[in-house]
Amino acid sequence: MVRILIIHGPNLNLLGKREQEIYGSTSLDAINKDLQALATEQKVSVEFFQSNHEGEIVDRIQQADGKFEAIVINPAGFTHTSVAIRDAIAAIQTPVIEVHLSNIHAREEFRKESFVSPVARGVVFGFGPESYLLGLRGAIALAREK
Amino acid sequence: MVRILIIHGPNLNLLGKREQEIYGSTSLDAINKDLQALATEQKVSVEFFQSNHEGEIVDRIQQADGKFEAIVINPAGFTHTSVAIRDAIAAIQTPVIEVHLSNIHAREEFRKESFVSPVARGVVFGFGPESYLLGLRGAIALAREK
Amino acid sequence: MVRILIIHGPNLNLLGKREQEIYGSTSLDAINKDLQALATEQKVSVEFFQSNHEGEIVDRIQQADGKFEAIVINPAGFTHTSVAIRDAIAAIQTPVIEVHLSNIHAREEFRKESFVSPVARGVVFGFGPESYLLGLRGAIALAREK
Amino acid sequence: MVRILIIHGPNLNLLGKREQEIYGSTSLDAINKDLQALATEQKVSVEFFQSNHEGEIVDRIQQADGKFEAIVINPAGFTHTSVAIRDAIAAIQTPVIEVHLSNIHAREEFRKESFVSPVARGVVFGFGPESYLLGLRGAIALAREK
Amino acid sequence: MVRILIIHGPNLNLLGKREQEIYGSTSLDAINKDLQALATEQKVSVEFFQSNHEGEIVDRIQQADGKFEAIVINPAGFTHTSVAIRDAIAAIQTPVIEVHLSNIHAREEFRKESFVSPVARGVVFGFGPESYLLGLRGAIALAREK
Amino acid sequence: MVRILIIHGPNLNLLGKREQEIYGSTSLDAINKDLQALATEQKVSVEFFQSNHEGEIVDRIQQADGKFEAIVINPAGFTHTSVAIRDAIAAIQTPVIEVHLSNIHAREEFRKESFVSPVARGVVFGFGPESYLLGLRGAIALAREK
Amino acid sequence: MVRILIIHGPNLNLLGKREQEIYGSTSLDAINKDLQALATEQKVSVEFFQSNHEGEIVDRIQQADGKFEAIVINPAGFTHTSVAIRDAIAAIQTPVIEVHLSNIHAREEFRKESFVSPVARGVVFGFGPESYLLGLRGAIALAREK
Amino acid sequence: MVRILIIHGPNLNLLGKREQEIYGSTSLDAINKDLQALATEQKVSVEFFQSNHEGEIVDRIQQADGKFEAIVINPAGFTHTSVAIRDAIAAIQTPVIEVHLSNIHAREEFRKESFVSPVARGVVFGFGPESYLLGLRGAIALAREK
Amino acid sequence: MVRILIIHGPNLNLLGKREQEIYGSTSLDAINKDLQALATEQKVSVEFFQSNHEGEIVDRIQQADGKFEAIVINPAGFTHTSVAIRDAIAAIQTPVIEVHLSNIHAREEFRKESFVSPVARGVVFGFGPESYLLGLRGAIALAREK
Amino acid sequence: MVRILIIHGPNLNLLGKREQEIYGSTSLDAINKDLQALATEQKVSVEFFQSNHEGEIVDRIQQADGKFEAIVINPAGFTHTSVAIRDAIAAIQTPVIEVHLSNIHAREEFRKESFVSPVARGVVFGFGPESYLLGLRGAIALAREK
Amino acid sequence: MVRILIIHGPNLNLLGKREQEIYGSTSLDAINKDLQALATEQKVSVEFFQSNHEGEIVDRIQQADGKFEAIVINPAGFTHTSVAIRDAIAAIQTPVIEVHLSNIHAREEFRKESFVSPVARGVVFGFGPESYLLGLRGAIALAREK
Amino acid sequence: MVRILIIHGPNLNLLGKREQEIYGSTSLDAINKDLQALATEQKVSVEFFQSNHEGEIVDRIQQADGKFEAIVINPAGFTHTSVAIRDAIAAIQTPVIEVHLSNIHAREEFRKESFVSPVARGVVFGFGPESYLLGLRGAIALAREK
Repeated sequence: MVRILIIHGPNLNLLGKREQEIYGSTSLDAINKDLQALATEQKVSVEFFQSNHEGEIVDRIQQADGKFEAIVINPAGFTHTSVAIRDAIAAIQTPVIEVHLSNIHAREEFRKESFVSPVARGVVFGFGPESYLLGLRGAIALAREK
Repeated sequence: MVRILIIHGPNLNLLGKREQEIYGSTSLDAINKDLQALATEQKVSVEFFQSNHEGEIVDRIQQADGKFEAIVINPAGFTHTSVAIRDAIAAIQTPVIEVHLSNIHAREEFRKESFVSPVARGVVFGFGPESYLLGLRGAIALAREK
Repeated sequence: MVRILIIHGPNLNLLGKREQEIYGSTSLDAINKDLQALATEQKVSVEFFQSNHEGEIVDRIQQADGKFEAIVINPAGFTHTSVAIRDAIAAIQTPVIEVHLSNIHAREEFRKESFVSPVARGVVFGFGPESYLLGLRGAIALAREK
Repeated sequence: MVRILIIHGPNLNLLGKREQEIYGSTSLDAINKDLQALATEQKVSVEFFQSNHEGEIVDRIQQADGKFEAIVINPAGFTHTSVAIRDAIAAIQTPVIEVHLSNIHAREEFRKESFVSPVARGVVFGFGPESYLLGLRGAIALAREK
Repeated sequence: MVRILIIHGPNLNLLGKREQEIYGSTSLDAINKDLQALATEQKVSVEFFQSNHEGEIVDRIQQADGKFEAIVINPAGFTHTSVAIRDAIAAIQTPVIEVHLSNIHAREEFRKESFVSPVARGVVFGFGPESYLLGLRGAIALAREK
Repeated sequence: MVRILIIHGPNLNLLGKREQEIYGSTSLDAINKDLQALATEQKVSVEFFQSNHEGEIVDRIQQADGKFEAIVINPAGFTHTSVAIRDAIAAIQTPVIEVHLSNIHAREEFRKESFVSPVARGVVFGFGPESYLLGLRGAIALAREK
Repeated sequence: MVRILIIHGPNLNLLGKREQEIYGSTSLDAINKDLQALATEQKVSVEFFQSNHEGEIVDRIQQADGKFEAIVINPAGFTHTSVAIRDAIAAIQTPVIEVHLSNIHAREEFRKESFVSPVARGVVFGFGPESYLLGLRGAIALAREK
Repeated sequence: MVRILIIHGPNLNLLGKREQEIYGSTSLDAINKDLQALATEQKVSVEFFQSNHEGEIVDRIQQADGKFEAIVINPAGFTHTSVAIRDAIAAIQTPVIEVHLSNIHAREEFRKESFVSPVARGVVFGFGPESYLLGLRGAIALAREK
Repeated sequence: MVRILIIHGPNLNLLGKREQEIYGSTSLDAINKDLQALATEQKVSVEFFQSNHEGEIVDRIQQADGKFEAIVINPAGFTHTSVAIRDAIAAIQTPVIEVHLSNIHAREEFRKESFVSPVARGVVFGFGPESYLLGLRGAIALAREK
Repeated sequence: MVRILIIHGPNLNLLGKREQEIYGSTSLDAINKDLQALATEQKVSVEFFQSNHEGEIVDRIQQADGKFEAIVINPAGFTHTSVAIRDAIAAIQTPVIEVHLSNIHAREEFRKESFVSPVARGVVFGFGPESYLLGLRGAIALAREK
Repeated sequence: MVRILIIHGPNLNLLGKREQEIYGSTSLDAINKDLQALATEQKVSVEFFQSNHEGEIVDRIQQADGKFEAIVINPAGFTHTSVAIRDAIAAIQTPVIEVHLSNIHAREEFRKESFVSPVARGVVFGFGPESYLLGLRGAIALAREK
Repeated sequence: MVRILIIHGPNLNLLGKREQEIYGSTSLDAINKDLQALATEQKVSVEFFQSNHEGEIVDRIQQADGKFEAIVINPAGFTHTSVAIRDAIAAIQTPVIEVHLSNIHAREEFRKESFVSPVARGVVFGFGPESYLLGLRGAIALAREK
């Protein structure tokens, strides 16, 4: 059975409360519930992980190697500052999908530069919570074509 | 019934023959067929348009306003050079989804800068032909939530 | 009799419908009517041309040489991306006036750079539709002083 | 009655003597006379002010607020270096038109960057003395549409 | 009663021992004692937190929301590298004051760019330990004017 | 008795009238009154100076040397353009505190670069009128520790 | 028999009339005649194509694949702005030679950057009409060594 | 007896498995064993520490002060993003040697900029596992010459 | 008789008191005395002018035209910020020599860029007070060769 | 009789042995032989010079003035670093043709910038050894048209 | 027997006399003696070469190919300016080690960019004379593992 | 007796023949004669050295240490490209004066950046041959004040 790990980066635990004009009013739990529903429908298993600690995310990516067929990650604030996460993604065999809720190209200049994108297999952003669902579908497609 | 316009930018008519190590071996017809199948399954209508002419794409975007609920566009080479297409997208009410087959962040530096992304509702890239399918799903979701 | 060619660049056919907070609610027809009125008052003839195609605008500029005493052009989105239009302007003898409706220095960074300005005889922007009327007056003055 | 203040920045008192290949042979007095003539024809009053001192120009802009319906300013050398003049323009209600005799985009690189343009209502440059007349017409139009 | 959280970023636990020519000889304990004294005098409560871990600081900022009326933070080395801390500050309602002991504009070039400043309510730097006291006073003023 | 000079740069005489969404509705007089009150409470004398002329501010800084124990300056628009003020500050012994009402890091890009900060002893910005009070307190502390 | 396609970009139809101090007084017809003569001498066939439309040039490059052994292109103004032409060249098997009449490194800064050069097999510029003849010789050599 | 601390940054625990074309096939254990052997031969003691957490590395550097005569660190991904580690190194007396397995100047542009190098005593990179051994020898030399 | 105007820019009235490690201990009076002595020896007349006001220096340069055979100017802080002074120099016929006491290329980065140098006839810097004497000699040579 | 000097820059003596994937397997002798053959055919004389010393190349260029009708130079590594060679070329009357074996626009970023191109009469690159032959033909054409 | 060539770049012949605060007081002879001692201990032969001439160093590198198993080079001032040396290193099979006495990342900005590093096998800097010894050890290791 | 070494960089041997619109018609011999005359008048000895070889100039600077009281150098094309000459100047005790005939700030952008200026004691440029005479006077002044 295809297993997918969903990683939520820093401050995503505040979703629904935080800057609603940018991130919308859906909570992280609601997003996870939608992801679980899609996973069930698609007959894959999903596991969720959220952390505000770069190191924990690096650890989690490393441990996922060989245990998951794909990772969907929203690196949030670490997108633009973490070479360590980039190196972890490059270090493992598992393909990684990068997603963002907001349109990072329509915001501050520094949000256009992503350390993660060049090592991701696919990138989805700007759809709000739908970004995750599209990312999960993309991950499943990738996992299945192998 | 939800109507979606799919626009393929310059050189995409060569898909399957062109630089296969970057773009894969799937032809544009095959992609359109997959998109049509998904549209049928999702009970939406899709229409296809390909052009190597920036002006024709600007015209087409303008005409789509009010006639389609969403546009999925792969601006290809125009992504990085066309303010006219950007302005056309900004000028209409119809939401626009930007897709790319390849991971544009893992290629030449100039491909990282997109004139289209800041005015797109959502962006998908790097999944190969799957990018289009995810983009179409995103477009349908956007069209339905209105 | 002094003859002036007015060229409207891409998306200007949408004027009055498009992004009204930037471009106002006046349609292109209304602008042309005002220009015609001013031309009649000033006893010059004017001819109008709009296109979303860079190549057609290049063609039109070339053909205008020797047939018009001045050109007033709003290159719109091509302002920042078309060396071909710049070269066409530099290639002909007819003086060219560049106009913009909006204040292009108060918008996105990329709109500050114009390929056309260095080869234009005069530039007017930020007055809304009035920019065209001032541009036409400037063109007439240039044509008459020759 | 509509009142317009015309401000001439540094070194414009030398017009007609200074770098004639760039600025032409018309003196500032001749320009003012033409502006006065146009004002009389248009039934508006104009007042003239020239200074080589940034501070005096800032003072004059501040004092103009509520006493003039529009300002036409050629900030000359201060265009590219004075945030204080920019802030004064932003601080007052009176709309401000920026004019330049020469085509500042066809000269040194540093003349392309204007601190004033983003806070001006309209900008005219490159027409020689005609720039002032067009600027005055634009100012009158702005003042009247209020 | 107004409650203020004081956050000390990485390496500030070494104060008094570390690079004394830049940071002075006062220890973090001495600074905290001075802050406590000022708080007592001003009849507000203060709580202190120091960490060398970006993630712990993000967590602490999140938890402070609704429990403190203001935060005073010296992000130290994270100032220039942490989008996650910036996003945490932007995500909460509690106003945040940024302080630095040294004059960050008189040091290495990279210390001039702060991810935190654009989302801070106020910034104080260069006064040595006095920066904290001024920051605390600013925080109290902000908290009281609400 | 400790004597402090307060210098207000260009356009600050318009405070309360000018761009209230950025600078608030407090007038310069009101700010000076608050500063005087704090000075009286702290048993120091303060003197006020406002000018829109860079040269007058340079003169005033030079004259202050040896007559004041500290200077609090809001260089306003000159912050980003005046090497002369920077050099005057560097030339005298009296310590100088730089203050700004608004958060200059949350505005236009060019406002991030300050010629004054590297030669200031301390910097305070973003607190509105409170910035001045904190700056005065910092100046008093600096003056007293000598 | 070796077949070579010669593509002339925008405004080259004006050769001989346009900016003679840069481009010389030879017309495009004269250049084509010289090219035909060299082709005849070298026993290869040549075909000519000129367009001011980027899209038409993209179309023409695509159609040439398999029908010509080499292409000689002077992309003129599109050199610096067309990723679509670059992508078309990269997409086909036929080797492409880039030529320019003028020395593009001795003109405006923006003319130094070519989107086409990195995907061209060889580049010739600065020789005036001779550039084309050298480019044709180079193309023939390339075509023959295959 | 001279004591040396060896710090391995993020993802180095994957050595031998990760991107072997860049990092080679030697595991971290094997490297540590070689380092231990050299230490024994040189009659110094070594201690090893690996972490994917920036904060833990900052803590470890701080604690090493006074307990070790030198530190050999491979900051890996943190090299280019961590001011906190840089500041920790600058804060302590113990000299620090920076090492990298790969030639960081022959890879992505962003890997050329190191926050650590300017505060390191010596830098070694590009030798593969041998980098560590050379770094350790350098550290011993530094420690002994004190 | 050859007449030379010596202009001293902002803060030079503080010479001898100000930052002696950079500018030395010689006062402006002493420099002027040396210049007068050299002038007497060379049988030319010199006149001195110092101001901290950009506008006054612009005025003075304008008035000098036709009254002096050369100007020696140390624009000090205005060197890097005044287009108005540059334009004044370009506007007059009198040749202008730029001098600096310190080596402006061995100081802050922004001191390397001079608005004045491109329009000066000659430049001398880094010799301390001797810079003025060399500048005067150069001015005399220029004036005499006319 | 037309005389042409061929100058080969640093490391070209290694041709055929060095980085064959970039420079091909033809030796410098073979290239010279082909050049000699073409010269004989074209009835011009050629002379060859190779050096790894920038100064010798400067000397050689200087001495060629008046003794040769044209120079063909492959400045190799000096292309991007030698202002001295550029100045030598600009100093003489003899026209100079720049050639490169490889496509310097398809390699490292720094190879795109040439100090020589702006002062060369014509430039040829990317054709391998054929670049020299085309360069020689161009030189002969230039020499003959004089 | 392993043979290693040691190349010392420009000005290194002045070591011990030159800028001792940066380069220390050890002479080049002393360094060579230490290198010889290490070579003897390691049973390899070393040969020394110093030159202030870029061309001589290029020649020497070329001649070393096949005669030495490794080169240790301190390119000194040529590090940042010589593409010719870079190309020579890339052209030969012999592996090259780059060493520097000082910490080139803690000095002027331009010393951070090395043309040599991307083509070197390993790099050592900042250890003073010890850099050479470590470089020699690295070279021996490289030579032996082949 | 004060001894001064005059060093002329590359291509200066062509003076009077080369680009006379920039460098004038005076030959190097004539300049040297003028310098000799001034030296005789000032009772100092001068020695002349010209080379097109960077290495020879480095050698000459090194040998001058202790044998001359000052050096006057026109590094010509090496000004902008030679760190080796810069390092040689920094390495010796003898003060060095940099001179240029032309106004290097009024020419190509790359001529504004000098590697030599930051380590020179004084700089003179733009006076034509007079630059050398002023430089020599400056050198004599420097040598005498020691």
